[in-house]
Amino acid sequence: MPFQIAIGPNIRKSPFFDATVADGVASFSVYNHMLIPAHFGDPEGEYDRLTGGVVMWDVAAQRQVQLAGPDAGALAQYLTARDIRDTQRGQCKYVPLCDHDGRLINDPVLLKHADDKFWLSVADSDIALWASATAAERGLDVKVSEPDVSPLAVQGPRATPVIADMFGDWVRDLDYFWFREAELDGIPLIVARSGWSKQGGFELYLQDARRGTDLWNHVKAAGEPYDIGPGAPSDVERIESGLLSYGADADKDANPLELGLAKFVNLDCEDDFVGKAALKKIVADGVRRRRVGLILSGGRVPQNAHPYPVWLDGKKVGTMSERVYSPRLKKNIALALLEADISDDQQGLTVDTGNDPRNATIADLPFC
Amino acid sequence: MPFQIAIGPNIRKSPFFDATVADGVASFSVYNHMLIPAHFGDPEGEYDRLTGGVVMWDVAAQRQVQLAGPDAGALAQYLTARDIRDTQRGQCKYVPLCDHDGRLINDPVLLKHADDKFWLSVADSDIALWASATAAERGLDVKVSEPDVSPLAVQGPRATPVIADMFGDWVRDLDYFWFREAELDGIPLIVARSGWSKQGGFELYLQDARRGTDLWNHVKAAGEPYDIGPGAPSDVERIESGLLSYGADADKDANPLELGLAKFVNLDCEDDFVGKAALKKIVADGVRRRRVGLILSGGRVPQNAHPYPVWLDGKKVGTMSERVYSPRLKKNIALALLEADISDDQQGLTVDTGNDPRNATIADLPFC
Repeated sequence: MPFQIAIGPNIRKSPFFDATVADGVASFSVYNHMLIPAHFGDPEGEYDRLTGGVVMWDVAAQRQVQLAGPDAGALAQYLTARDIRDTQRGQCKYVPLCDHDGRLINDPVLLKHADDKFWLSVADSDIALWASATAAERGLDVKVSEPDVSPLAVQGPRATPVIADMFGDWVRDLDYFWFREAELDGIPLIVARSGWSKQGGFELYLQDARRGTDLWNHVKAAGEPYDIGPGAPSDVERIESGLLSYGADADKDANPLELGLAKFVNLDCEDDFVGKAALKKIVADGVRRRRVGLILSGGRVPQNAHPYPVWLDGKKVGTMSERVYSPRLKKNIALALLEADISDDQQGLTVDTGNDPRNATIADLPFC
Repeated sequence: MPFQIAIGPNIRKSPFFDATVADGVASFSVYNHMLIPAHFGDPEGEYDRLTGGVVMWDVAAQRQVQLAGPDAGALAQYLTARDIRDTQRGQCKYVPLCDHDGRLINDPVLLKHADDKFWLSVADSDIALWASATAAERGLDVKVSEPDVSPLAVQGPRATPVIADMFGDWVRDLDYFWFREAELDGIPLIVARSGWSKQGGFELYLQDARRGTDLWNHVKAAGEPYDIGPGAPSDVERIESGLLSYGADADKDANPLELGLAKFVNLDCEDDFVGKAALKKIVADGVRRRRVGLILSGGRVPQNAHPYPVWLDGKKVGTMSERVYSPRLKKNIALALLEADISDDQQGLTVDTGNDPRNATIADLPFC
């Protein structure tokens, strides 16, 4: 559906906006009230770079919520369902955030800078508002803000030499989900080994919005020998890899236990956190849904704009959130939330995609 | 800039989505994680209908945050900077919401259904998260939710006969900012005399998402004798009228006193509200900026994608949020936040719009 996007001052521009326009961005989405590139006119080539080479993404819309002050650690723990008390300086952790009813409201990466300074690198919801209300009402001595920080991701099996050429060989020794402060041409940065794919890579957290084009062009130049190109977070790769897309996969009632995030939820954490009591009750009552992969029958499916129901014997038993054709697997693959009592070998499932119903079988995540 | 919008399951579809596609929507924006039409291919004709006839808008993205339960009234008052204690059932009130630092975080319309049930019809930020955290941390007995409610606006000087033909002559007696429950062809609705323009009109709050296309088509049919057409909230009309666009005009530090909303802020309210102490301090220290209209010199300006600085003698003295060419006034008009000590007759102001600087003079709001 070739609709235009209205670009007005009500939607924020990334510091990399001008550079992405210069490099031919063709389609945008909106994330955290900011434009985020969706593709540069060649989605299949961009996927090939991600899975076989190296690609660069403007993911500035993955905004940081900073917790700073004497109670920053206490607030960080209270906001997250994961036990983060042993997190080290320079370490990242994937942390589900829940509301008081135990529903997932975001799934950021936490970055610990110091005992009194944390970032939450957030998915698409206004966590700064939620966190600041919580801090103020609890009388905590912590300032919640959105600092001038904008990630640029470099992803793919050839990402490491690009980043090593820019910053030095120390980046090769950076473990997955660790980060370090760095500088490049006077640009203040965080270099983190992370990113929203399973292809490996880095995120460069730009800390000066005025230098967006400079950083973009430095990466582009360093990546040229490795045939880098611009792209965007890939629906195909993330579904193949089973990564959660908060806005797409988690309906407003979904809790992290249904969504397959149980290993990131520590109900035995000594400290309280938002949603802990509700999640304990959900466990006691029995988790009612589970997140699964689906393989859909028939010819290549187009990407879907809406979620679709999953049917069994004329009864709705779940919701498919997103489907794609996987060029690697040569299959139609999808993610869904199904009733928990549907077994892995259930026959007769169908997904109603409007006027093109498909048979569905359950597959392990990640797809392989 | 003709970029496409990526339409995936991560961005919600309005109940009127299919109907707007059928009627030729050409451009979308995103608001509260939902697609909202920006225009239907004829922005000038849509403006003419709004100011001289009647137009219908899918504004489902103006979501409702419902406060329900014994403490709903206490929470509603605590969340809003306006004294709402005398609000009647069936009455709407425009209410600024602030954070604990007194910064504007939304400017919804409050609808009072009963002493224990309120809606906040919100601008583009996740107020449900903020409100639910506040309610839970204060131990209030109130449920915060987003109900199945989607407004469709009918705006313009010929809106009243369209709505009267649909619902009866009682709508002519509905005062501005009052509402009533109604039903049409079995579709449960709220009919409110309100809308984000100064042209008069109504908002029909659909209460059953499955009936979106039905409601759209009923309005279209009832409006046919009055030459109704589809459109969208108009940047031109709202700037002419001086209406605030929260996402565009309010930067992240702006408070309602700077934004010209002082008459909706009741610092002498007996009850406490979020941001009250901070706003009192801002008043004591002196409000540092003010919202003004600007008239820009030279030929017709295109709409801007970014905010731009306002300069005086080489020094930045403010920010222009949005500018348009007004066909009614035959002038370039804009909204800006300026330092409070810039007087109405200040000469020498310029707005730097990239490579096309314009002289600016201050004008009263609304423009006339």
